[in-house]
Amino acid sequence: MAKFIMIGENIHCIAPSIRKAMDERDEGPILERAKKQLDAGATYLDFNIGPKRKGSEGLMSWGIKLLQSHFDNVPIALDTADIDEIESGIKVYNRSKGKPIVNSADAGERKKYIDVAAANEAIVIALCSKEGVASDNDEREACCLEMLEHGMGLGLDAQDIWFDPCFVVIKGMQEKQKEVLGFIRWLAEQGFASSGGLSNVSNGMPKELRPIVNSHMIAMSIAAGLTSAIVNPCEEALNKAIKTSDIIMNNSLYADSFLEL
Amino acid sequence: MAKFIMIGENIHCIAPSIRKAMDERDEGPILERAKKQLDAGATYLDFNIGPKRKGSEGLMSWGIKLLQSHFDNVPIALDTADIDEIESGIKVYNRSKGKPIVNSADAGERKKYIDVAAANEAIVIALCSKEGVASDNDEREACCLEMLEHGMGLGLDAQDIWFDPCFVVIKGMQEKQKEVLGFIRWLAEQGFASSGGLSNVSNGMPKELRPIVNSHMIAMSIAAGLTSAIVNPCEEALNKAIKTSDIIMNNSLYADSFLEL
Repeated sequence: MAKFIMIGENIHCIAPSIRKAMDERDEGPILERAKKQLDAGATYLDFNIGPKRKGSEGLMSWGIKLLQSHFDNVPIALDTADIDEIESGIKVYNRSKGKPIVNSADAGERKKYIDVAAANEAIVIALCSKEGVASDNDEREACCLEMLEHGMGLGLDAQDIWFDPCFVVIKGMQEKQKEVLGFIRWLAEQGFASSGGLSNVSNGMPKELRPIVNSHMIAMSIAAGLTSAIVNPCEEALNKAIKTSDIIMNNSLYADSFLEL
Repeated sequence: MAKFIMIGENIHCIAPSIRKAMDERDEGPILERAKKQLDAGATYLDFNIGPKRKGSEGLMSWGIKLLQSHFDNVPIALDTADIDEIESGIKVYNRSKGKPIVNSADAGERKKYIDVAAANEAIVIALCSKEGVASDNDEREACCLEMLEHGMGLGLDAQDIWFDPCFVVIKGMQEKQKEVLGFIRWLAEQGFASSGGLSNVSNGMPKELRPIVNSHMIAMSIAAGLTSAIVNPCEEALNKAIKTSDIIMNNSLYADSFLEL
């Protein structure tokens, strides 16, 4: 199997310093977070500009040009609720190191993100949900197949739809974690690529617990067949968990120095 | 599902101080290791006296009486290649806190350990192997079913056979880890109890890597359905991994203090 793909989540407008840098088109803070994530082993960088707002026009293209010109055309996940920004971002995107990822579609109102991906030969992260989190795996499966059919009908390669099982929070939905892992296993059995925002699982937990919980959940998810995730690659425990899981699953070759590679 | 069962592995004659204490029937070092393991959350204590040797006669009974009298009839895994010691040990064993575990049978020369367990209403750990490690899961499955049939024919309850998938070393058998996890999943699907010596997987690795590798392998194994393991409960990373896995799998109820419980 291929090595697990880390999509670095740290360039996100929810962080005040990044929000400010985006608003002021200030390169420094964004380049700094990009470098740290790439040094930690991220393959993709997620560039999350949030919803459409005053002054955000052209922000996605600006970010893509900035990151790709400084980091050897690093592949990027274009993350925003503003679909126009995704389309204009893809226009300036350089594909030499990998297709752009459209982040994200679902089987409901955001189905049109699949259209954008198909029209632009992009990858799309597709949340297996329609209106809020799916109530069970039958619903997840139905959403998945609906999006697959829709995408393939538009000429999208099935491998370019990365299905997101929708990780749910343990505090409140503890009994649902096994279900999510079961769905990841189902996706893997079908041969589908997958991704997701894993850190959801530890939302609301004391700060010191979150890396512990996230790192074991990612190990379990990789064992179940998850092929990528949107994570903080600079979080040490999580980073070790991913590298170790890749060794156990034989996705990368063991060496005594594997944690340093 | 029930909480994952830790069988503490630290009272083992391979440790020079324990070997000496066993030879001299010196209670102190053995009681100390027992207490530490119980404080760390071990349910069972493994008492491993190795093969038959000069002066080892009666050692198992001595150890059982020692541990059970000091720790409220703590349940014990009787671990030795000397089958007479197992039989005489069970005679003095107090079952008020749980059946004795006979450690261990296999589908080859050690099949008679199943007979001992059946004759004494004990649990038996049953290695799914015959002559050395099974070459694939078909062979593991055949060994499992052979032992199951044998045990049930002797009146043993299927739930009292804890099947051991035989964890194998990553350095040299990296490509086999997924197979072992697949076999654990198969055991769980049949509803079988399981156990095993997990630390095998990291044999030969640099010392600082072993807890990291063991802790992620145990998380993956618990997610696959492993119900117990023979481990060092005092190893912090492993202990956290087991508690966290029990939370994710909904085997124990989440509380912010779950790592301290």
